[in-house]
Amino acid sequence: MIDFVTFCNYAGTFAFAISGIRLASAKQFDWFGAYVVGVVTAVGGGTIRDILINATPFWMEEAAYLIVSGLALLFVLIFRKYVIRLHNTFFIFDAIGLGLFVVVGIDKTLALGFPMWVAIVMGTITGSFGGMIRDILINEEPLIFRKDIYALTCVLGGIVYYICMRLGSTAMLTQLVTAVSVLAARLIAVKYHLSVPVLKGDE
Amino acid sequence: MIDFVTFCNYAGTFAFAISGIRLASAKQFDWFGAYVVGVVTAVGGGTIRDILINATPFWMEEAAYLIVSGLALLFVLIFRKYVIRLHNTFFIFDAIGLGLFVVVGIDKTLALGFPMWVAIVMGTITGSFGGMIRDILINEEPLIFRKDIYALTCVLGGIVYYICMRLGSTAMLTQLVTAVSVLAARLIAVKYHLSVPVLKGDE
Amino acid sequence: MIDFVTFCNYAGTFAFAISGIRLASAKQFDWFGAYVVGVVTAVGGGTIRDILINATPFWMEEAAYLIVSGLALLFVLIFRKYVIRLHNTFFIFDAIGLGLFVVVGIDKTLALGFPMWVAIVMGTITGSFGGMIRDILINEEPLIFRKDIYALTCVLGGIVYYICMRLGSTAMLTQLVTAVSVLAARLIAVKYHLSVPVLKGDE
Repeated sequence: MIDFVTFCNYAGTFAFAISGIRLASAKQFDWFGAYVVGVVTAVGGGTIRDILINATPFWMEEAAYLIVSGLALLFVLIFRKYVIRLHNTFFIFDAIGLGLFVVVGIDKTLALGFPMWVAIVMGTITGSFGGMIRDILINEEPLIFRKDIYALTCVLGGIVYYICMRLGSTAMLTQLVTAVSVLAARLIAVKYHLSVPVLKGDE
Repeated sequence: MIDFVTFCNYAGTFAFAISGIRLASAKQFDWFGAYVVGVVTAVGGGTIRDILINATPFWMEEAAYLIVSGLALLFVLIFRKYVIRLHNTFFIFDAIGLGLFVVVGIDKTLALGFPMWVAIVMGTITGSFGGMIRDILINEEPLIFRKDIYALTCVLGGIVYYICMRLGSTAMLTQLVTAVSVLAARLIAVKYHLSVPVLKGDE
Repeated sequence: MIDFVTFCNYAGTFAFAISGIRLASAKQFDWFGAYVVGVVTAVGGGTIRDILINATPFWMEEAAYLIVSGLALLFVLIFRKYVIRLHNTFFIFDAIGLGLFVVVGIDKTLALGFPMWVAIVMGTITGSFGGMIRDILINEEPLIFRKDIYALTCVLGGIVYYICMRLGSTAMLTQLVTAVSVLAARLIAVKYHLSVPVLKGDE
């Protein structure tokens, strides 16, 4: 099980990094700039979480995350022509990664003694703030606040996690059900073009 | 007195959140995105302060700030048509909140043993960096650096705080005089269209 | 030697602040806004490093950095007409500062017990993230990811540092060789218009 979770974690990192690198390349960033945007997309959410809960940022304890992001850059460089066709594959990876990131964020926050509502916020930050920083770096309005249901699926995952816990589920089952809920919510949201209503401005 | 300060603190949070939500709505953010921008505007300055002085971010210790921001979203959704007319009311709330945020920032920093000049910087960050992050999120150049005297009134408040302390004033009087100074400075700056001179570029 | 390092450190801070103030002035920021952008450019990279390695941000322990940034603002205000002509002087200061910032970032990270690869990342963040935040504040795509070899010279400096250490060099020699390597790499990159290839997008 550990191996499967680790695999999903790296697959999610890979998919998040790819999304950062692709958007950076659309803005004419150089290779190194694209790599930085990829890394920040992949680890940015978890880093903000770790700063807020006063833990050592997770990617500073294991070089794997920077290496996986480097492989993502290599992948885009080599298979540039096929990247568009693999769009759906990346989407699945991204959604699996999102579910896992939410679970990791909640687990780590609870382990440090914070209450459930803080853990749900941290799960949401882990899953969605990487994409937010990515959009800030490439100078666009954050997509996650304007398209599909993205950040909100992280909140949903947090609520599922809480319900599982209250029902007395084991840690592993709670994690699995939460991650699958986020994944399912993303698939459904994108397939049926569900989105949160736009807030109409007063001006 | 505690109750009055708490009320002002929540009123300030409400007003800051409203300003974030309104600007997000002008950019077609969805409800959840607007809520996030509102929260970040309201708690962003204090969060950066707490990270810099290595304290637990204040809003993680009490759910009230996220709830008040949620009420601000509800308020904008329900009273959309009246929000423009209430502009002056929000401005007063915002100015009161600013004064209080500055005082809270200075107090907390001094309590942790930092020198006065660091406390003045932290008071300024508490009051003005929330609006700065808001403008980054909605992809605009930070307004607080270009319009009216905003961030500078926080510095002024810090200097007033220092003078009161040196004159032997009680903590409560120092806090009151500081908050009122910031409030008065904001009212005067906006009424008489005072602003810091623009720095002319060399290009 | 200490005095020379301190001088270079302040000269680098001055040059970094000037670059922030000049770009802010091109965007019609007011004096105070330009000062904030100058400070953030000068101390932003080191601040992110200190937050990540959980140290007190360096500029909170010594007022010199905020004062030097204030002098940079004064300098731009008074010698506005000559600032363009001094372009090459600022470039040298900036490159010297960059080399020193990288060394300081690596040293501080290693002293806290982190492994070499984390130290290289922190050296790069110290040298290049100030300019990145500057560009976010003035609402431009980060220049350091698109022009010349900037962030990458920091990585190069980190590798030179590691090689010197493995060869048994003294701390002082390691620092000197690293700083000079970064300086030389910047001079060569700019003189010969070297740059990292742009990543071609798929769209």
